[in-house]
Amino acid sequence: MPSSSSPEPGWARSRFSLPRAPDGSDAVYLAGNSLGAQPRAARDAVLSAVDDQWARVGVAGWEDCGWWATPQRLGDRVGALVGAAPGQTVVGDSTSVQLFGALVAAARLRPGRSVLLSDAGHFPTDRYLAASVARLTGLRLVTSSPQAMAPDADTAVVAVPAVDFRTGERWDLGAVVERAHAAGAVVVADLSHAVGAMPVALDALGVDLAVGCTYKYLNGGPGAPAFAYVAVRHHDALDPPLTGWTGHADPFGMTEEWTPAPGVARLRVGTPPMLSMLALDGALWVFDDPDAPELTGIRAASLALGDAFLAALPAGVDVVTPREHGRRGGHVAVRVPDAEARCAALARRGVVVDARPPDLLRFGFAAPYVTVDDARTAARELTAVLG
Amino acid sequence: MPSSSSPEPGWARSRFSLPRAPDGSDAVYLAGNSLGAQPRAARDAVLSAVDDQWARVGVAGWEDCGWWATPQRLGDRVGALVGAAPGQTVVGDSTSVQLFGALVAAARLRPGRSVLLSDAGHFPTDRYLAASVARLTGLRLVTSSPQAMAPDADTAVVAVPAVDFRTGERWDLGAVVERAHAAGAVVVADLSHAVGAMPVALDALGVDLAVGCTYKYLNGGPGAPAFAYVAVRHHDALDPPLTGWTGHADPFGMTEEWTPAPGVARLRVGTPPMLSMLALDGALWVFDDPDAPELTGIRAASLALGDAFLAALPAGVDVVTPREHGRRGGHVAVRVPDAEARCAALARRGVVVDARPPDLLRFGFAAPYVTVDDARTAARELTAVLG
Repeated sequence: MPSSSSPEPGWARSRFSLPRAPDGSDAVYLAGNSLGAQPRAARDAVLSAVDDQWARVGVAGWEDCGWWATPQRLGDRVGALVGAAPGQTVVGDSTSVQLFGALVAAARLRPGRSVLLSDAGHFPTDRYLAASVARLTGLRLVTSSPQAMAPDADTAVVAVPAVDFRTGERWDLGAVVERAHAAGAVVVADLSHAVGAMPVALDALGVDLAVGCTYKYLNGGPGAPAFAYVAVRHHDALDPPLTGWTGHADPFGMTEEWTPAPGVARLRVGTPPMLSMLALDGALWVFDDPDAPELTGIRAASLALGDAFLAALPAGVDVVTPREHGRRGGHVAVRVPDAEARCAALARRGVVVDARPPDLLRFGFAAPYVTVDDARTAARELTAVLG
Repeated sequence: MPSSSSPEPGWARSRFSLPRAPDGSDAVYLAGNSLGAQPRAARDAVLSAVDDQWARVGVAGWEDCGWWATPQRLGDRVGALVGAAPGQTVVGDSTSVQLFGALVAAARLRPGRSVLLSDAGHFPTDRYLAASVARLTGLRLVTSSPQAMAPDADTAVVAVPAVDFRTGERWDLGAVVERAHAAGAVVVADLSHAVGAMPVALDALGVDLAVGCTYKYLNGGPGAPAFAYVAVRHHDALDPPLTGWTGHADPFGMTEEWTPAPGVARLRVGTPPMLSMLALDGALWVFDDPDAPELTGIRAASLALGDAFLAALPAGVDVVTPREHGRRGGHVAVRVPDAEARCAALARRGVVVDARPPDLLRFGFAAPYVTVDDARTAARELTAVLG
């Protein structure tokens, strides 16, 4: 059981390998909203997968090392971080692939309806795939900001993020679900910028389907596999388009027809990338180790980091992220001229952030390894490069 | 340039880590048609990806370590092994996902036609996804064995494997392409059981699209990413369904609409699983190291292994794979009663093979690490467990 005490920001720093600054010291690494730093346990897990498993056990590893069951095993661990009871979450493939599958499956839960309603500011892959799914399923794509969405009896699917990838604004997922369900639509949530940064209550809010990535606040490594959630009430009706053999009820029966596996396992597609999967397996100790803090504590620490950063900024800096805790995600975005050049200048000073078009710098506050000193240093260096 | 001399089977054995037999010695590992053994260079590449790249460089690795370009870079290396000129192959996602994208894109190249013609004995995921794609695109799925296929003016797509996953029979891909093209259809080939085991001449044969996996004869590791090939003549018209952000012409522009990247890069979907990608990067030295033998030599060595195995089998063993070299793939399949139990018995004797329903044992002859002694041992032990 995770501890319920609120942790000091950076409490797990010594158990991470932090990227280097140009002078060779640890960088002030505030890009965890893009690619999390490396937990040493993730390294150990990859090394064991390579040396103790693939090398020595070979193909028998699918059974003897538990590889086959990993998508569901990791799914339950990630599910616990987003308020999902076991058996509703699976890990594998990329967020884009999971999203495609979830959107088609969601549309099929509401036959006879004509609209796919998606966040206008959704992450690009979410927008592009919504357009592709609308075309394939015959739906009409309509976009709106999450708080302005007005689903009606024509709306099949409502697709929203938990946190805006640019501004860092946290949306009221519960309100979106309430309006969608009142109209009879199903909700597909993208949790990429929320999972691991704050509690998410998928089951309690009644979210229908969700996807998310594991290489940001979950620190699973570059291109770590995504996850997909489907509420148990939809399992029997769930009719996904990516009917890969690993989602079959009897995969090694190799029968003629695709018979979906019971439950969320039918969202498995192809053979999972085990080395990347097992890196994530190691990384998750940050969140579910017996000594790990609760997500409420991790969230409080992240907000404290953001507050320290905001307090140290001079007046006049254009912060686009809401300051209110309830409306803030895991990162803070600042509007600056020449964002790309400022980003590079900060990197030269040992502060790693990222830039998003047209004019935003994003400062990610991954509380397990970012300290209050880091947050203040970032504000000071930002001030310097803006000066 | 690879060497043109024909190698001795097992020439690279010392540069692999072979799975262990129950007595602790190296197994006779004939499951490379399912999961290739581990090249030590793959281990080194993963370790470097973890320690030198992710840990030290962090998110800047997408540019500074070349991660972003890896799908195309590895694509060209794999492409060279299947007769594809550069710029037509991309690595990433699973074979199932690549296949789904390829089948939909192929169908869109032939609007107005009504049939998807697929191999009746295709690997399960190929059959299941063909059915799903037919449903989504409004095509009618028709199945037939590759040699009996009779595409006509209604046929949009012909989907075939290069080698039958069960029997190990190698199909005449050129003849399939010729018949398909005569009818105006496009061919989607699955090269999973051919790539790395024998030369494939995608460009020369005029194959339209192809996919394949890299964890069999390419030794990329468990769940290593797949590859997809599209002949350059189709690039401009190619209209894939998995419109992920990484396949965008300007991915970091994050524009409203999906504008496909030029060429095969538009088949990129989500963020690629870099640790699994870089394991494959290391593994490919087996094939494109300056001292590596040509694929014709590797193929000759594999056939020699199969011949040694077949010659050592007692009369009466029911071999389902054609003995003729031109019709044989990289593995030899034998029909036995209680295949699963025989497979387990062989494993206890240190011979690793696999069983496929209903009654086949498959013996994979991955020439880089399998020796003639291994092939003879396997025949002897099979005789013993059948006796």
